[in-house]
Amino acid sequence: MSWGWELGLVNLINAGTDATTTEETLDPQDWEAVRRLGHRMIDDLVEQLSSVRERPVWQRVPDPVRAALREPLPVTGQPLEHIYEEFKSRVRPYPTGNIHPRFWGWVMGTGTITGAFADLLAAGMNSSVAIFDDAPSLVEEQVIRWLVEAMGFPETGSGLLVSGGSMANLIGLAVARNARAGYDLRQHGVGGAPFTLYASRETHNSVAKAVELLGLGREHLRLLPVDANFRLDTGALAMAVEADRAAGRRPLAVIANAGTVNTGALDPLHEVADLCARERLWLHVDGAFGAMAALSPELRPRVAGLERADSVAFDLHKWGYVPLEVGCVLVRRGDEHRAAFAAAADYLAAARGGLVARQQKFSDQGVQLSRNFRSLKVWMMLKEHGFAKLGRLIAQNVAQARYLAELVDAQPALERLAPVPLNIVCFRYRGGVTDPATLDALNRELVVRLHESGVAVPSGTLVRGSYAVRAAITNHRSRREDFRILVDACLKIGRQLEAETGRAS
Amino acid sequence: MSWGWELGLVNLINAGTDATTTEETLDPQDWEAVRRLGHRMIDDLVEQLSSVRERPVWQRVPDPVRAALREPLPVTGQPLEHIYEEFKSRVRPYPTGNIHPRFWGWVMGTGTITGAFADLLAAGMNSSVAIFDDAPSLVEEQVIRWLVEAMGFPETGSGLLVSGGSMANLIGLAVARNARAGYDLRQHGVGGAPFTLYASRETHNSVAKAVELLGLGREHLRLLPVDANFRLDTGALAMAVEADRAAGRRPLAVIANAGTVNTGALDPLHEVADLCARERLWLHVDGAFGAMAALSPELRPRVAGLERADSVAFDLHKWGYVPLEVGCVLVRRGDEHRAAFAAAADYLAAARGGLVARQQKFSDQGVQLSRNFRSLKVWMMLKEHGFAKLGRLIAQNVAQARYLAELVDAQPALERLAPVPLNIVCFRYRGGVTDPATLDALNRELVVRLHESGVAVPSGTLVRGSYAVRAAITNHRSRREDFRILVDACLKIGRQLEAETGRAS
Repeated sequence: MSWGWELGLVNLINAGTDATTTEETLDPQDWEAVRRLGHRMIDDLVEQLSSVRERPVWQRVPDPVRAALREPLPVTGQPLEHIYEEFKSRVRPYPTGNIHPRFWGWVMGTGTITGAFADLLAAGMNSSVAIFDDAPSLVEEQVIRWLVEAMGFPETGSGLLVSGGSMANLIGLAVARNARAGYDLRQHGVGGAPFTLYASRETHNSVAKAVELLGLGREHLRLLPVDANFRLDTGALAMAVEADRAAGRRPLAVIANAGTVNTGALDPLHEVADLCARERLWLHVDGAFGAMAALSPELRPRVAGLERADSVAFDLHKWGYVPLEVGCVLVRRGDEHRAAFAAAADYLAAARGGLVARQQKFSDQGVQLSRNFRSLKVWMMLKEHGFAKLGRLIAQNVAQARYLAELVDAQPALERLAPVPLNIVCFRYRGGVTDPATLDALNRELVVRLHESGVAVPSGTLVRGSYAVRAAITNHRSRREDFRILVDACLKIGRQLEAETGRAS
Repeated sequence: MSWGWELGLVNLINAGTDATTTEETLDPQDWEAVRRLGHRMIDDLVEQLSSVRERPVWQRVPDPVRAALREPLPVTGQPLEHIYEEFKSRVRPYPTGNIHPRFWGWVMGTGTITGAFADLLAAGMNSSVAIFDDAPSLVEEQVIRWLVEAMGFPETGSGLLVSGGSMANLIGLAVARNARAGYDLRQHGVGGAPFTLYASRETHNSVAKAVELLGLGREHLRLLPVDANFRLDTGALAMAVEADRAAGRRPLAVIANAGTVNTGALDPLHEVADLCARERLWLHVDGAFGAMAALSPELRPRVAGLERADSVAFDLHKWGYVPLEVGCVLVRRGDEHRAAFAAAADYLAAARGGLVARQQKFSDQGVQLSRNFRSLKVWMMLKEHGFAKLGRLIAQNVAQARYLAELVDAQPALERLAPVPLNIVCFRYRGGVTDPATLDALNRELVVRLHESGVAVPSGTLVRGSYAVRAAITNHRSRREDFRILVDACLKIGRQLEAETGRAS
């Protein structure tokens, strides 16, 4: 039943054009010129990515370029070729830097050229993976099935690709709230005795943001102590739940970390899962990057218990190396997932056939209705490399973190500030400085100078109150030599700063 | 201060590779082969988009392809060329269809090849527009300034590019809730007397979804009557607010429509804005597509009052013709916008220089922390075409809707079911059928057969309880002839169905 020939519609379609109306379009007048420009973009992209190691990790946008990027509203158009030249001269040279082998700031993925190609192909189709019976919907379902399996979730688990970890945490906690409130919260809203939630104080801020957005109140998120390894203290957790119950509050959910943002600490998932089962609490695991350790047979034991979560959030655009944006939320019980978001609307009703023959709507699993074809880049990259290689690269990053820790430990002038359970190394330059405030200021400046040097980009954070240089390694381009370069640069800049400090005091 | 030469780091960087370790990467071994494949992708994309008119709007994914898209988890990899061939044979032929000139279902943009190129370039840079001092952040600021100006907002207004209208509505209402609660709602959560919200019953479901997610309770969203033109009844609005105040509830916000999803109705924005000013209510305008009418000098009067909103949501991936995903939320007072989401975290602290010298964080304006470079496609398309042409195309779609309405009105067998204030036409095949249930069933089937014919894709909805064929025209590829094809196809299929109905009864 294709293309309407059987309805005799072919003649209608070949009807002549309307000579009396000249209609405009945004399509190019000269497709051949656009094709040639596209080839140049590909050539430049290959050049950009294959030679990225030879460029600075980051460089500040020069003031004249800043000024040029503040133009008046463009009333009339200009040739696409000019705009591309402007992109090449004013935009591309000044990226965030996470495509570079020596970028280890925050937790950001490197991306690949396959991922960039996939975004081109997805935008070319411009499909909305929402309520439609089309191939992009089937590709997302495929990707979700693979991720459900990879994370050890039951086949009945459901999932959704989202913008990233913040949205994945929000959806996981929204399902928890709506499924466990004990009344129709969607209808009646938050009310009555407070719902309380529990997480370690090392938990990412997106969890607090989600709690706030859900109307639950940040004061009802208990940020609990951690042990010497920055893991959630489950004794403190049990006591907090008990105290809240005794006070008439309604314990709702525990958010456990599979890899904390500061140090990569792994909360004791099995212990937390046991407690959640006992206390009938929802277990949400924020595995933004750490959950991906499940893809490595060698690392999987470190995140054991993850598969017992009611919901888990993780990113493909971090330790899956896929370009932004793509995160994922998995929910153990698909019915609870859909019950939290499903909505009927006259204009979204399914049909017996045609474009909305599909019964299961992606929009019933999250906030968005229109959704782009972000699954394509995941599908292509997983098929290109396979889960085994992806697991090896994740393990490689963990080995690199171990290597960096060893390099740091071997330098008397450097000091490691936290254990390295996964892929994050926190350290500082110490040299002969002893005053804590001076050390903080020195290392804060060290990170700035490192960035400005273009040599390497770690980020900074506080570890037990001390400023730390922090390298989070989710980079498939990094080699061991890159970490030696980082350590040497830290020593060199550190000594220079120590000398400046000495001169200043 | 570039590239660290002044620190003498160049020698470190040129240090030899580590002979004892062989590290893997996801980068291709043969960049030249990837370059050639990229060229093929460009060639195919140009072919796909320049000839889209010659293909069916939509075709069902055949069962063997469905089966092939359910593969076991890929453990090992395969050449990218093979995956691209699979994409070409199994995925690309089966899109949603909104790239086609005769797709008018729901409200979906067409996209352009420039937008697809921009997504390639953005993914190649893979920058995160979040907290960083880099060119992508400057491009997003530039785009937001243009949109603030285009919508008539004050220069002090703030904005954020988001995934789409659902998220833009959620953010607008989150700011409303947090700014107008009268206490620190982020800290304490939703509580006390209910906050009430007001909108017409024609309002898009994403508003109810946002109200639910924010913990306000769907029962506190008053869905009010509309007039004969499907516009919010402001008398009913005033009474509802008064009744809620009298009952001790806390009126919070009005959501006005600049273009309802079913018929494109435009709520009386000035009247609503007057009432909101009088009653001290937040005015959020859902202008998912209709707000874009402000870009056309001819249409701007129809959305007058939009510029008085406290927040407005609209999509660039609908009537801006930009590929998915990109929507926008503007907030009149930037301080209120940021106060709703801003968060401090040790790992996100700004610095005096380097990559986080930036003080204003995009992540302080919404849910996401990591954010892709979606502004690039908006920037490139706005510069390529200019606002003037964009406004003309929007007006062209409105003229086409008028034209379609005339074609429908000229056919005795067809019946128009709603006024056409903007770009949406609701009608049905009537023929000689009089029974309402039969008419609904016939038209429901008509839409399915239209989809399956591949000739045109309108969607269906209910207009005052009657099933309507609905064409929402946000398509820069449509020509007048395309609407004649639609009408002829509806007549042909309608007659066929009427005959079948007659035979069956």
